[in-house]
Amino acid sequence: MRSYLSHLECTACGRVCSAEQVHTVCPACGRVLYARYDLERARNAVDPKMVAGRPRSMWRWWEVLPVRDPRNIVSLGEGDTPLLPAPRLGQRLGCARLYIKDESLNPTGTFKARGQAAAVSRAKELGVKGLVIPSAGNAAGAMAAYAARAGLPAYVFMPQDAPEANKKECAVAGAHLELVAGHIGDAGRLSRVRAQELGLLDVSTLREPYRVEGKKIMGYEIVEGLGWRYPGAIVYPTGGGTGLVGMWKAFDEMEALGWVEGPRPKMFCVQAEGCAPIVRAFQEGKERAEPFPHPQTIASGLRVPAPFADYLILQVVRASGGSALAVSDREMVECVREMASLEGVFACPEGAATLAGLKRLLAEGRINPDEPIILLNTGSGLKYLDVL
Amino acid sequence: MRSYLSHLECTACGRVCSAEQVHTVCPACGRVLYARYDLERARNAVDPKMVAGRPRSMWRWWEVLPVRDPRNIVSLGEGDTPLLPAPRLGQRLGCARLYIKDESLNPTGTFKARGQAAAVSRAKELGVKGLVIPSAGNAAGAMAAYAARAGLPAYVFMPQDAPEANKKECAVAGAHLELVAGHIGDAGRLSRVRAQELGLLDVSTLREPYRVEGKKIMGYEIVEGLGWRYPGAIVYPTGGGTGLVGMWKAFDEMEALGWVEGPRPKMFCVQAEGCAPIVRAFQEGKERAEPFPHPQTIASGLRVPAPFADYLILQVVRASGGSALAVSDREMVECVREMASLEGVFACPEGAATLAGLKRLLAEGRINPDEPIILLNTGSGLKYLDVL
Repeated sequence: MRSYLSHLECTACGRVCSAEQVHTVCPACGRVLYARYDLERARNAVDPKMVAGRPRSMWRWWEVLPVRDPRNIVSLGEGDTPLLPAPRLGQRLGCARLYIKDESLNPTGTFKARGQAAAVSRAKELGVKGLVIPSAGNAAGAMAAYAARAGLPAYVFMPQDAPEANKKECAVAGAHLELVAGHIGDAGRLSRVRAQELGLLDVSTLREPYRVEGKKIMGYEIVEGLGWRYPGAIVYPTGGGTGLVGMWKAFDEMEALGWVEGPRPKMFCVQAEGCAPIVRAFQEGKERAEPFPHPQTIASGLRVPAPFADYLILQVVRASGGSALAVSDREMVECVREMASLEGVFACPEGAATLAGLKRLLAEGRINPDEPIILLNTGSGLKYLDVL
Repeated sequence: MRSYLSHLECTACGRVCSAEQVHTVCPACGRVLYARYDLERARNAVDPKMVAGRPRSMWRWWEVLPVRDPRNIVSLGEGDTPLLPAPRLGQRLGCARLYIKDESLNPTGTFKARGQAAAVSRAKELGVKGLVIPSAGNAAGAMAAYAARAGLPAYVFMPQDAPEANKKECAVAGAHLELVAGHIGDAGRLSRVRAQELGLLDVSTLREPYRVEGKKIMGYEIVEGLGWRYPGAIVYPTGGGTGLVGMWKAFDEMEALGWVEGPRPKMFCVQAEGCAPIVRAFQEGKERAEPFPHPQTIASGLRVPAPFADYLILQVVRASGGSALAVSDREMVECVREMASLEGVFACPEGAATLAGLKRLLAEGRINPDEPIILLNTGSGLKYLDVL
């Protein structure tokens, strides 16, 4: 097992940093750092067939993951989630090849497990003494679980009104849970103070370079699942946007590795009407998003009023020829029912939002119904019983 | 893809039935029917390496599963759950090679998905028009999801005091949910009446021959995960016991296929103090269990006062050199915490019961701590938030 990780690079100013030290954001401009790999050499060492033959888990893509020593991998079996054909739903919508990428089969019940597996593993490898996270939900639950498995102390700052499921999964994993009177932004400020005080690593969304590495593997798996062909469209529920920008990063890498070619999928960003900063910025033609005032939605993963990677999300959506749109909480709840009763997938509201979005995109003629379409269900509806 | 299914055989009287017709229990004596395969011919057609190279899911073991036409497979991505090393927990208990088989990564969050995937698929193949189940919990949720995916109507009879999560997952999948004032036995009686009235198949635990076929694959996966060697012990939380008897059936098959040999694992059956019919029968040296009066436990999966396959469970536990023991609800809750905080696995109370059981078995010298030990976590703690 060998990682081809070579360095870190700023997504905004291009600043290069060593990957062998702990970094959070770009030391020059404060924006998102990406991990970069020596893909030229990896291309000669590995091919998709080799990867397919390895034991299941996200870690079978080790050449393009950031952990150097396998003993540092902190895994709960994340990744390799099913890409489910959705023929009954497809027939209703007139889509010939509709799929649900069902991330609810991850540890902790959501795709957040992927990012935390990568971030916690690399933090352990780099000798980090403990972790801190501000989160309104599932990222905290995942972080608490992986930190527990790594034997690292974990501090979670969570808005008081966060879902019960998330509070309980943090508590049961032994994380230090602090409930904050305020929203995720307030939790973030407290979290960064605590990180500095105690010398801990803040694993907030895209404020450290490795969560996106775990999430990007969804892109590898989807393209592998389609026989190393791109789908026509990916409909993605966008809060922090790590998965969306991660998959685009995966496409860059897969092309550099020579594993796929041809037109990339259109990337569609679905948000909640009550918290749609990216949709506004997209419609107004802006490069960055304004913080969305009074964010409100039952989809806690979409309640991100000021995504740190706003500029990357907007770049990806535009470069792909996709778009951004908002759906209502009511539509989400109806689509939870529709997905469960037609395909047996009990999605979270975020995942169901992609179905609501798809309907509108089909009506507007923005998605070709004859091409493979991927709905990304980011987690299990079982974590949202109190709001459904 | 080819199934080597040959016939059905009664586990008690040996009566042989055709596998090409719908059967429930043995038409001669009313006990459990098992599916039998032509393992001599399968042995020449497949080996473990071929199975390992197939796409992930329970269905990669198709030779020993009962579906003949792959188009009848109703899958949500069940199976191939992680066999997680548990080194931190192992160190605390003095176990050199402790593993958690984490079934919470199945669709619907529990191992019930395996059994329902097999039963619903085969029911579809045999032309069944609809399904009915009495269940206090997770089996109903799984059945509702797979029936929805298959496009088959589903009727669920559930005790009024069943967990919220299970009621909601049935409702959202569009199942006809009837809440019964009484316990699982009462639900079972109503369920069988409805099945007769409407001409539906009753998929109660071990009252049809195929759920156990899905569950048995846990046995294949565990032995494969250990490099085609048996573990020393499997600690299993026993309600209906399908997984326990299913794994033993898998061992029979794997030996006939020439895939594994050597002493089989000791099978330990853990029940709740408030519902321990098998433990009583085991201690009293009986071949069958008396119905347990006033069953009560937070572990809804263990609240089975009169398991239909009692005689098979007792045979397996005795033949393996294992034993049966009961733990308290309080121990389960403590062990949920211990497993989550040391290994990051948020187990259901049933899964945590295996840890409580292991502690006692180690103290009594019944398990060799130097051999591989498997704790079977049957599902996610997220479905039990109201009782934890």
